[in-house]
Amino acid sequence: MWSGTEVGYGVIKASIVGATGFTGMVLTRLLSAHPVVELDVLTSTAQVGRRVDEVFPHTRVPGEYVAYDAQRLGDSEFVFVCYPHAAAHPVVAELVDAGSRVIDLSADFRLADPAEYPRWYGFEHARPDLVAEAVYGLPEVYRDKISGARLVANPGCFPTASLLASLPLLREGGVGRMIVDAKSGVSGAGKTPTEKTHFSSVHDDFRAYGEVGHRHTSEMVQEAASAARTAVPVSFTPHLLPVDRGILVTVYLCPVGDGDSSGAGGLLSGAELFELYSRAYAHEPFVEVRAAAPALSEVQRTNFCRMAVRVDPAAGLYKVVAVIDNLVKGASGQAVQNFNIMAGLPETMGLEGEA
Amino acid sequence: MWSGTEVGYGVIKASIVGATGFTGMVLTRLLSAHPVVELDVLTSTAQVGRRVDEVFPHTRVPGEYVAYDAQRLGDSEFVFVCYPHAAAHPVVAELVDAGSRVIDLSADFRLADPAEYPRWYGFEHARPDLVAEAVYGLPEVYRDKISGARLVANPGCFPTASLLASLPLLREGGVGRMIVDAKSGVSGAGKTPTEKTHFSSVHDDFRAYGEVGHRHTSEMVQEAASAARTAVPVSFTPHLLPVDRGILVTVYLCPVGDGDSSGAGGLLSGAELFELYSRAYAHEPFVEVRAAAPALSEVQRTNFCRMAVRVDPAAGLYKVVAVIDNLVKGASGQAVQNFNIMAGLPETMGLEGEA
Amino acid sequence: MWSGTEVGYGVIKASIVGATGFTGMVLTRLLSAHPVVELDVLTSTAQVGRRVDEVFPHTRVPGEYVAYDAQRLGDSEFVFVCYPHAAAHPVVAELVDAGSRVIDLSADFRLADPAEYPRWYGFEHARPDLVAEAVYGLPEVYRDKISGARLVANPGCFPTASLLASLPLLREGGVGRMIVDAKSGVSGAGKTPTEKTHFSSVHDDFRAYGEVGHRHTSEMVQEAASAARTAVPVSFTPHLLPVDRGILVTVYLCPVGDGDSSGAGGLLSGAELFELYSRAYAHEPFVEVRAAAPALSEVQRTNFCRMAVRVDPAAGLYKVVAVIDNLVKGASGQAVQNFNIMAGLPETMGLEGEA
Amino acid sequence: MWSGTEVGYGVIKASIVGATGFTGMVLTRLLSAHPVVELDVLTSTAQVGRRVDEVFPHTRVPGEYVAYDAQRLGDSEFVFVCYPHAAAHPVVAELVDAGSRVIDLSADFRLADPAEYPRWYGFEHARPDLVAEAVYGLPEVYRDKISGARLVANPGCFPTASLLASLPLLREGGVGRMIVDAKSGVSGAGKTPTEKTHFSSVHDDFRAYGEVGHRHTSEMVQEAASAARTAVPVSFTPHLLPVDRGILVTVYLCPVGDGDSSGAGGLLSGAELFELYSRAYAHEPFVEVRAAAPALSEVQRTNFCRMAVRVDPAAGLYKVVAVIDNLVKGASGQAVQNFNIMAGLPETMGLEGEA
Repeated sequence: MWSGTEVGYGVIKASIVGATGFTGMVLTRLLSAHPVVELDVLTSTAQVGRRVDEVFPHTRVPGEYVAYDAQRLGDSEFVFVCYPHAAAHPVVAELVDAGSRVIDLSADFRLADPAEYPRWYGFEHARPDLVAEAVYGLPEVYRDKISGARLVANPGCFPTASLLASLPLLREGGVGRMIVDAKSGVSGAGKTPTEKTHFSSVHDDFRAYGEVGHRHTSEMVQEAASAARTAVPVSFTPHLLPVDRGILVTVYLCPVGDGDSSGAGGLLSGAELFELYSRAYAHEPFVEVRAAAPALSEVQRTNFCRMAVRVDPAAGLYKVVAVIDNLVKGASGQAVQNFNIMAGLPETMGLEGEA
Repeated sequence: MWSGTEVGYGVIKASIVGATGFTGMVLTRLLSAHPVVELDVLTSTAQVGRRVDEVFPHTRVPGEYVAYDAQRLGDSEFVFVCYPHAAAHPVVAELVDAGSRVIDLSADFRLADPAEYPRWYGFEHARPDLVAEAVYGLPEVYRDKISGARLVANPGCFPTASLLASLPLLREGGVGRMIVDAKSGVSGAGKTPTEKTHFSSVHDDFRAYGEVGHRHTSEMVQEAASAARTAVPVSFTPHLLPVDRGILVTVYLCPVGDGDSSGAGGLLSGAELFELYSRAYAHEPFVEVRAAAPALSEVQRTNFCRMAVRVDPAAGLYKVVAVIDNLVKGASGQAVQNFNIMAGLPETMGLEGEA
Repeated sequence: MWSGTEVGYGVIKASIVGATGFTGMVLTRLLSAHPVVELDVLTSTAQVGRRVDEVFPHTRVPGEYVAYDAQRLGDSEFVFVCYPHAAAHPVVAELVDAGSRVIDLSADFRLADPAEYPRWYGFEHARPDLVAEAVYGLPEVYRDKISGARLVANPGCFPTASLLASLPLLREGGVGRMIVDAKSGVSGAGKTPTEKTHFSSVHDDFRAYGEVGHRHTSEMVQEAASAARTAVPVSFTPHLLPVDRGILVTVYLCPVGDGDSSGAGGLLSGAELFELYSRAYAHEPFVEVRAAAPALSEVQRTNFCRMAVRVDPAAGLYKVVAVIDNLVKGASGQAVQNFNIMAGLPETMGLEGEA
Repeated sequence: MWSGTEVGYGVIKASIVGATGFTGMVLTRLLSAHPVVELDVLTSTAQVGRRVDEVFPHTRVPGEYVAYDAQRLGDSEFVFVCYPHAAAHPVVAELVDAGSRVIDLSADFRLADPAEYPRWYGFEHARPDLVAEAVYGLPEVYRDKISGARLVANPGCFPTASLLASLPLLREGGVGRMIVDAKSGVSGAGKTPTEKTHFSSVHDDFRAYGEVGHRHTSEMVQEAASAARTAVPVSFTPHLLPVDRGILVTVYLCPVGDGDSSGAGGLLSGAELFELYSRAYAHEPFVEVRAAAPALSEVQRTNFCRMAVRVDPAAGLYKVVAVIDNLVKGASGQAVQNFNIMAGLPETMGLEGEA
């Protein structure tokens, strides 16, 4: 276990803007236990003056929430922003301009093309310069760029799982279509009570939502094309599980030119596919390729992504089943992983326990 | 509400062989409340002599379980067989030979080609003559043949949902691949306690199982080919939901010759697709095509299949989301529906309430 | 099964005021399937103009919600009022004054003493005359008065279970204290989304709430004293279960004068206790005394109350474990039971199925 | 966070006998992350040769299970025994005789009087000498004796929560009766699949079990009498929650001589009661007395016991609501706490994270 300051790392001040949502709560726990972080400011809009362990009794974290104050945040070398999309980018810009390095957990800097924001998120982006500068914070792809970045756009939860499940095959070329059937726990819908998150609407139930055109599709399309060096059609369907935390994606990767139903002609064997994925992630501290199909419980409250790969020769396609915790590897844990990279710390520091 | 015998239908004696599993339990409830059925014999192996309402305290059904006795069952005009695959077919054969009309809830007569049984179910079929005679009990397709049948092979739960979700498009032609991502409640795994059905293995969790080669694939392949009048590759992946009852299938139907990623060229519009499905099921008492995506809770404990259809133009495919209760439309309710057809009764008799 | 109008009962028009909460929804299902009821008006404040099966897709009930209109409701011989406490009583009064017979599912007429309303419910009662006239709608106690009543105060969910569990012993005399440890499903907290009913607050969790002074205590105290013909101290503690529907109460009944810890001296034996309860409920269609301790699942979606009784000689007290469905026997089913009694119908009419 | 060996503690070899149940699994996680423990031998009967992370994929603990071998265990200074009652005591005796210090998680040394074992656990104890020597491992009571003990009897999960909730009042004297209404998650029933732990038997359900005479009553009676210096009648009723982990007890403490229903005469005020409990646990690292009633989620996967205290003046009694994780403070975490005390380590070492 790390005991950071004893082994030569200096203390780093970090703050969280919008700390009272689910991602803010997990981030608060992770950073408060991080060996070299001094958790400085936790901002909130609705909970100013309340104690952390009053709002989240299970966290046992001291301190209380304060109102957002750019000046006060200026003392923090790193700031994590947990605002909703559209609301985040002015704050992020202000903080970056003031000299902090920012990890933005919203969607506001994930898409490389500013023109995509009106289309997918319904707002005109005020800072195309920062869009151009921001690094997409998927360490398994962009580790080198992340290390020097001023602004990291932390990926969405669904794209994190879906891309990790697809990248090795996408990079090989020949994937003609990517179908992502995703199942998410309720915490992904946020802490605000709605009819959709009422216990009686979710418990003992299951449904699809956003069946076509979910916003996270845009990230997948962007990164899939980047990996494949060509556009790859992506069909994405999220479903709502009666569990609190975790995402399981079942990704179907269909070869190009398979319309003739000729079957397994050019498919890799199961062993070759396993080898391809194992090699791709051999040095990744948080990606595990296993023989057995994974369950949510294997990654809940951790920063791991665990997956299994399958060839379906009769249907002429590949299947990858991958699991993450939506609030950890899908949000706050990955944000800490990015922070570690940016700060030159060991990448797993503060991420060994449960979150 | 039916009150059968008052409106001119005579009493029909029916029995259940293997009545103490989950499907047997639901069948017991349905038949004991059926307006014209006199529930005669309930057989069991492990529970002989125990009362129904002791084994299933919520059923409030009188009577007790007896050992299997072909002679005694001979009094029943109809017999429902709820044995596991391989174990069912000798019993079914004995009962049919003795003159009863049989609805077999196992897989033992679902596949038309006797050669498929060793491959998918690991046993050599002793009665190819009855395989040839048996009617696949999906009323929405085979209603006419069911009405006069001596032996009906009640479909599997996954095939029921998947086929109802796909048939209208399959019949149109042009489907090049069918991908079925299925999510099932735990009751589908049966009543025998195992590590996989332990509460602590399922609760707050989610996983895929039988990722390639699940036995129900064989039924889907057979019936998809029959509807499309050509072989259609089927990729089937079941997952285990932390709910007791219900199946949701998300079916992806990819057009033939779509390997060129040219997108939505030949796809139907959303309105055309909705019209196609609505027309196909306009006269079906238990199939509902809706604009909104369905949830399990809308069909739990009922014999309904409810579905919504979507076009994904960017990905060049169709999606159909369908829900059923695995123990009702996916098993015992469909068995009663088949019984009603065979007996010349109104098809919905005894199926209006909850089960 | 009843088929009311065929066996000589005339059609009865009934309406529901406040039909879009959980109790309104269950009442809508029950009345729409009731053999002699013509469901007339369903009022709502927030959902005017929406269809029932759009707001509650699983009900498959036709019709739509309209605004409250006393005149329009005047056509209904019976009106069920599902408003919150304090809001209900002016509406109830208006309807009774206009000539309808009313079953009020709120708390506004449950307490016999008008002075109790400010204390427990925080409002001054405007109609003490109707408080005096109203009958407490627990059929197992007040059946005779209910039959001729103009206004029935349908009991609370917790009092229903707790009183049925206690009355036979209370009537015997000698109960010195009644401790009710109650566990309720989430639907008891209503349909409005709040932080407390958010899936993530309830799932995989459990807690006590309203640990002292819950409003339902007042009903228990009133009816316990009435049964015992003397005041009986009642300690009531509700807890929130991660289930949707159902209440289980564990009631501890301590003998008077037991402070000397002298043990089981005057206690009934287990057999005597079972006999006492069995006799008390021998002719009750919806109360079942059983040897085995009951589970919620045995009564969910039904109008039954099922219980088991135990003597704990070492501790010198009795325990009764009782279960009901909070929305059926604890609310809407009991309301229909009261309606049946008021209308001179068989008491179980329309209550045989699931709700 | 501790980093034990760096701050002057030597490495301690410890082993687990019966490591593949739920308590063994949690103990394996805790000890494998403990700063000064070298986890030596993990024995199993059914899983010999299998890897830990294969049997428990979420643990990510290396190593594999071996058969029990007293000689091989002799190298361990400390041995934790996770066998069922009756089976544990010969093994414990063998290990103690061989010189190891043993923490026994079974019930086999919890009762001070050897005559109680036949009565409550159905076996004759072979080692009354070790019964006499064993220390009841509730650190909040017996910390001093634990530190030098060769054999610690780790308390049961229900007694741990119930006693911590009652001891301050019991010690004051004047408690005439203690009623424990306990609600436990399913993991308390163990890992072996049974009808009772089948998902379909527990999910969306709730029930009492062992309504009178549950074995854990014996521990409570023993320790309550010891604290009160007089016998206190205890009524204990466990219930089964549809959650995996956690116990909530609602304890009703009735004053002596309260049979006259004279009410709150001699009761403490709420503030006095809070003060009594706060003072009693002021220096306890794992007991938290709070104003707000606690939820299971506040202690799941931790070694904390959190509680709230209430006075119910109208009913003349006290209520204490307390929560623990049955597998941590109720079993394996408390075992590590006892180990820390025995080994002269800081009591919280290895118990700060989640388990």
